[in-house]
Amino acid sequence: MNFADKLIAAVQKKGNPICVGLDPRLEQIPASIVKKITDKKGMTKEAAAECFLEFNKGIIDAVSDIVPVVKPQIAFYEQYGFQGVWAFEETCKYAQSKGLIVIADAKRNDIGSTAEGYSRAFLGDVEMFGTKAKGLDADALTVTPYLGYDGVKPFIEDCKKFGKGIFVLVKTSNRSSGELQDQDIFGEKVSKEFAQDEHMRVYELMAHYVESWGADEVGESGYSSVGAVVGATYPAQAEVLRRLMPQAIFLVPGYGAQGGGASDVKPCFNKDGLGAVVNSSRGIIFAYEDKEKYGPDGYADAAKEACLDMKEDLKEAGIC
Amino acid sequence: MNFADKLIAAVQKKGNPICVGLDPRLEQIPASIVKKITDKKGMTKEAAAECFLEFNKGIIDAVSDIVPVVKPQIAFYEQYGFQGVWAFEETCKYAQSKGLIVIADAKRNDIGSTAEGYSRAFLGDVEMFGTKAKGLDADALTVTPYLGYDGVKPFIEDCKKFGKGIFVLVKTSNRSSGELQDQDIFGEKVSKEFAQDEHMRVYELMAHYVESWGADEVGESGYSSVGAVVGATYPAQAEVLRRLMPQAIFLVPGYGAQGGGASDVKPCFNKDGLGAVVNSSRGIIFAYEDKEKYGPDGYADAAKEACLDMKEDLKEAGIC
Repeated sequence: MNFADKLIAAVQKKGNPICVGLDPRLEQIPASIVKKITDKKGMTKEAAAECFLEFNKGIIDAVSDIVPVVKPQIAFYEQYGFQGVWAFEETCKYAQSKGLIVIADAKRNDIGSTAEGYSRAFLGDVEMFGTKAKGLDADALTVTPYLGYDGVKPFIEDCKKFGKGIFVLVKTSNRSSGELQDQDIFGEKVSKEFAQDEHMRVYELMAHYVESWGADEVGESGYSSVGAVVGATYPAQAEVLRRLMPQAIFLVPGYGAQGGGASDVKPCFNKDGLGAVVNSSRGIIFAYEDKEKYGPDGYADAAKEACLDMKEDLKEAGIC
Repeated sequence: MNFADKLIAAVQKKGNPICVGLDPRLEQIPASIVKKITDKKGMTKEAAAECFLEFNKGIIDAVSDIVPVVKPQIAFYEQYGFQGVWAFEETCKYAQSKGLIVIADAKRNDIGSTAEGYSRAFLGDVEMFGTKAKGLDADALTVTPYLGYDGVKPFIEDCKKFGKGIFVLVKTSNRSSGELQDQDIFGEKVSKEFAQDEHMRVYELMAHYVESWGADEVGESGYSSVGAVVGATYPAQAEVLRRLMPQAIFLVPGYGAQGGGASDVKPCFNKDGLGAVVNSSRGIIFAYEDKEKYGPDGYADAAKEACLDMKEDLKEAGIC
């Protein structure tokens, strides 16, 4: 099944477009989990990895009936070496076993022959002594487009082949994203290729690329499996990008801890109320730190309440 | 010690700027290694990882007296999951134990708080239950600059703190690199920031960023620990970039299998004969496929000869 159709169906079934970012930080894992695991494994990378997995399972169990998508960010896991990557893999598998769609947030990028390796790693099949084996088999992956189409194509081919999706960075949520992404580009090349304004921002150029790269991956929902990352912190740009990429699903970081509110994410949606998933990481998984009634051991219940709060917040803005 | 000084000293000691790309592919690992390991471990990801490590150790033993630098590309390892990442880590450690400088080629990128995670993972210290532990502790890391300075800053801070280096993608070796990197940018923002031409290419803008980001990391050699990736396949652009980034060390992929020759990489060097390291992956590690006298079991000797051939090739072009 086409990834976009699967994602849209999941959003409709759950009645909201929330993506929970599974970005664990060791210093914020509840002490009871840490004690139980370090008593057995010592203060090791293996113990850190097991703490992450146990913490994540608690979150997943609490939110899997409410939200359609989770997005583990692999940097947090890679810190703990191959043991951390093990926890990342197990987290993805556990989330999928609970019916959640998993977006691996790894922002991979390289030249074609190497991008093929990343694509096999996260989305496709890997060579296994003359046969094939599954890689991580996530549902989707984030991808950085600095190298142009031939660095993105291997991922798109695996989207087609295995029913997977990608989200290409277009306009990111961070403060200095404009240093490259907001530059005005000018000249023959752009106007010839797109036959429109001679003048556009880099993020608009990338939007045109994303829309054209994904044109063959549009499913029955009308959305493409080639989506875009568009930060909640730039609502005016999101409005432009929504028009430039009518068929792309937006993965929207920046809600909550990074400062984006429900009204800021609204321009990321189409008139059909679809077309975006909104991520919140710290604001959900570490909600126990702000919701005193729960305490550390109630972190999963606090996360569940934070999801319901977020759903309400989006609903009030007319999003779901 | 400043990374740039360490790298320049290693290049001078070995008398060449060759970087061996450790990008193993399971289907090209000699049958004798595969048999020995799969007999014990079966046709598993663990076996694939062990094949990679044993293969790499053979290459490293053969080339460590000749070349100054190796560059394992993590995509090839990530295909085999956490077991593959284990092989990547062990490869880096083994190469360092043989006196080689290790550039982890992972092209990481994200917003600041997540980039901190990647930087800790590859270059710095990680949180370990209230104390600190080393991450991978590579000597340097490749970084993709699509998110601007706040996504690169955490890496630069770890360069300063731990004597590490980064290589920022500027102009990549692949065919479609120009789709973004060659765009003409125009307007107030660029001219105000750099007080020069109103018109420049994206790769020129990135070069200005790299030179300014690395200004505080210049060592006694006159080179900065913030370097740039500049493909051997674009010699004319390399010439411009060499002028724009006099203090940056260039990491130059694209020699050999990708089509770049010694004359193509020459513009990447400064007049002092320094300022670049030239990578070759397939052309060295799988040299046994072209050098029939060696055969698969002589892969390490074939790699050694390929390094000596490359050194000769660079020497003839007046590079070393």
